[in-house]
Amino acid sequence: VTELPLDALETLKSIVGPSGVHDDGTLLEAACKDYFGRHTGTAGAIVFPDTLQAVVECIAACDAHGLDITPQGGKTGLVCGSIPSATGTGIILNLSRLNVIREIDPVNRSVVVDAGVTVAQLHDALQPHELIFPISIGSDGECQIGGVVSTNAGGHSVFRYGMTRHQVLGIEAVLPNATVISNLRALRKDNVGYDLSQLLCGAEGTLGIITGVALKVLPKPIQTSAAFLSLTSIDAVIQLYSKVSTTLSDFLTAFEILPDNGVQLIKRHVPDGVAPAVKQASWYILLEVNSASAAIDLGDILNAELASHFENGLILDAVVSQSESQRKQIWKCREALVFAQGRHGPVLSHDVSVRIPCIPALIDRGRAAILDIIQDVEIICFGHVGDGNLHFNVAHNGPYPAFSRDWQHRIERALYSVVQDLGGSISAEHGIGEKRRHVMSYSRSDCDIDAMRMIKHALDPNGHMNRGKIFGSRT
Amino acid sequence: VTELPLDALETLKSIVGPSGVHDDGTLLEAACKDYFGRHTGTAGAIVFPDTLQAVVECIAACDAHGLDITPQGGKTGLVCGSIPSATGTGIILNLSRLNVIREIDPVNRSVVVDAGVTVAQLHDALQPHELIFPISIGSDGECQIGGVVSTNAGGHSVFRYGMTRHQVLGIEAVLPNATVISNLRALRKDNVGYDLSQLLCGAEGTLGIITGVALKVLPKPIQTSAAFLSLTSIDAVIQLYSKVSTTLSDFLTAFEILPDNGVQLIKRHVPDGVAPAVKQASWYILLEVNSASAAIDLGDILNAELASHFENGLILDAVVSQSESQRKQIWKCREALVFAQGRHGPVLSHDVSVRIPCIPALIDRGRAAILDIIQDVEIICFGHVGDGNLHFNVAHNGPYPAFSRDWQHRIERALYSVVQDLGGSISAEHGIGEKRRHVMSYSRSDCDIDAMRMIKHALDPNGHMNRGKIFGSRT
Repeated sequence: VTELPLDALETLKSIVGPSGVHDDGTLLEAACKDYFGRHTGTAGAIVFPDTLQAVVECIAACDAHGLDITPQGGKTGLVCGSIPSATGTGIILNLSRLNVIREIDPVNRSVVVDAGVTVAQLHDALQPHELIFPISIGSDGECQIGGVVSTNAGGHSVFRYGMTRHQVLGIEAVLPNATVISNLRALRKDNVGYDLSQLLCGAEGTLGIITGVALKVLPKPIQTSAAFLSLTSIDAVIQLYSKVSTTLSDFLTAFEILPDNGVQLIKRHVPDGVAPAVKQASWYILLEVNSASAAIDLGDILNAELASHFENGLILDAVVSQSESQRKQIWKCREALVFAQGRHGPVLSHDVSVRIPCIPALIDRGRAAILDIIQDVEIICFGHVGDGNLHFNVAHNGPYPAFSRDWQHRIERALYSVVQDLGGSISAEHGIGEKRRHVMSYSRSDCDIDAMRMIKHALDPNGHMNRGKIFGSRT
Repeated sequence: VTELPLDALETLKSIVGPSGVHDDGTLLEAACKDYFGRHTGTAGAIVFPDTLQAVVECIAACDAHGLDITPQGGKTGLVCGSIPSATGTGIILNLSRLNVIREIDPVNRSVVVDAGVTVAQLHDALQPHELIFPISIGSDGECQIGGVVSTNAGGHSVFRYGMTRHQVLGIEAVLPNATVISNLRALRKDNVGYDLSQLLCGAEGTLGIITGVALKVLPKPIQTSAAFLSLTSIDAVIQLYSKVSTTLSDFLTAFEILPDNGVQLIKRHVPDGVAPAVKQASWYILLEVNSASAAIDLGDILNAELASHFENGLILDAVVSQSESQRKQIWKCREALVFAQGRHGPVLSHDVSVRIPCIPALIDRGRAAILDIIQDVEIICFGHVGDGNLHFNVAHNGPYPAFSRDWQHRIERALYSVVQDLGGSISAEHGIGEKRRHVMSYSRSDCDIDAMRMIKHALDPNGHMNRGKIFGSRT
């Protein structure tokens, strides 16, 4: 915790009220730590505006006093994007008091929400309208829409519905110069000049503070089925994907992969019955289909499709959900893997993507490159294989603490070199924040990064907005 | 035609060869006219680079000589975005020689194409792979991907697949400073810094020259059915939309509206048999569904769905395609409307959008506002009602020339005031170009436009890139 100039503190208090500013205490300290408490930044205060106008005034005040601003939502990101840097001297602007669902339009299939609305809150509000917001991530209860949009979050249904950016119809945001850009009209088509909303989506709060968002929503599926499949090789996984992404393309929402060593970790560390009872194989696929149509029997369609892949030998064994609770049980296995890894010991997480046909090469070459460096590890590749996105995790078998910073960097370099060579991304869905800054060049050219800096400098010439994120600490 | 400095001309010829530069003649004159030959700009030369490197060198040369650059593709836009302005003194950079389909990846469902590839060329190349690119517009044979992406084109299938921006996985472009940004890795997920591709998509060539694009493609539907429906009121249209956009949501690709006065124009001006034989009513809906699944009978599903809306009285009459030729016949009616309008006389076209529930108010209030100004006209509202997007056209019943510039402006002001009041867009899919520049403020705040200018100035400080488009002629 650093100290703010007294007049700055007074100005902020006059804007949001004394209860909206904390310049010390546990609340500020907690806000400076990342979700898992592994990283700590510093700030002079945390400020809780509760109106758009208050956000505007806070930003103007910070600009006048030369203070940096770290926008903060649910703080569930994994790359230190929503906590201040270790050398921070500014404020944290927490958006959680902007938490009104402004509008639900069932015919237009759109909502307008404040940035501080959580994803779970939106899901709940849509329930009575038989609508869904198709982005659902592990942290639904805590993550806020402003953060979800700022980080262009992914999740389990990207294959069908796209990333968060594809749900965004428009945003309202306060720019670093304390002006407000706004497009919350929830239009499906609107080609009037640059799409500023798409620019701020994924900009991780470095170009302005998102205060409101207009989003697409969808009719709630009335049928959903999940299947858990054993497959004997990664090539079979790609072949199966290639088939079902065509035959089931109207219905397929998720195509997730789990490795056998991950499932063994679940069996070891998580109570019985979580891992579905299928024959052991090197890879497992969690596949989900849904439909809003009452005119078809999706269970029959899925069974027939899977049966054909038994016959051609692609699938070794399968469990198909016969009820909603069985469907949830299948997904529990996916969630249990994250938990089991944590129980097993220290984990280095990576979030990489390649083109789908390059997945086998990514796994083979990535694994070999890491095992060249360190041997006593489990390499657990799981995730959204239908989007070309794997969480390429390295779990140490030995006692904690296992990974020095030097090990981390050596492993990163080894894996990201493979990713680069395959034309992939070193951050498929988690963003850059502060933690992936030093490895951006594996996936972006200097010219690309220079162009980003030009835009950053144009909108935020003093670099106050989320300093140290995406770019180096002095932009 | 203006004259270029001789040394500039020599430099350009040295880059693309003498046959790639025309500084006079019919080719240059034609390139200065818009698609319908109604507007004419001026330029000193048209230049045809055939490699990325040549584009880079042309831009560097223009920068060195202080020449403006108008990027030009198929020139099928309707807002004078791809011809130079009337006071232009620079060059036209035509991308048509960059016309290679670089890559088709059927498993990743992606393509990488040069900017000069036409949409029809891409459709043809995908045919043997059983894949489609879901953007299809009236000018498929001529419009080029670079222009389609630069203008974020829409078309008939936006309801299902989104706009062009939703198909874009990445772009390669030459910025005004002659550096190249590039993301043609065709990744589904890639959250590494700002999404420059999304920024250039829809920027109408004002931020740089798109030279290549990575696009999503989709499995070719194996079943497609179209229906042409009579409905007695616009409220019934919205009610029907509200129903089928849920029940058919997995399959619905198009929900287009045609007004009775438009269908009467077709009957008068286009050979017999084009207008489907349904009972006359005030509105007609052209609806299309498709599926890549062999496990369902889409015709049955569509028939059952429509039958239920006969029973509840929403639909008065219907024709459903029983064959591919009948399906094409139904679409011919949609295309014939554009032709029939032209035959009828002078037309003022508008391309506006509102939220879907506001469509009836848009039609009523827009019509009343226009009829207040001018009476001897047909107001023909047709188009992509399922996206909230109407082509709100005013066809004069009297002899040509009918609409003075003053009439045009009065009608625009009347209609756009209604659109603004309903929170709509004055350019849903056609963009701003030069023709809609003066009305941007009906749909964007000064703050929004200022932010766009900041970005424009950051990337193109001298304003050489497509000068006069989106912004005023001096930015």
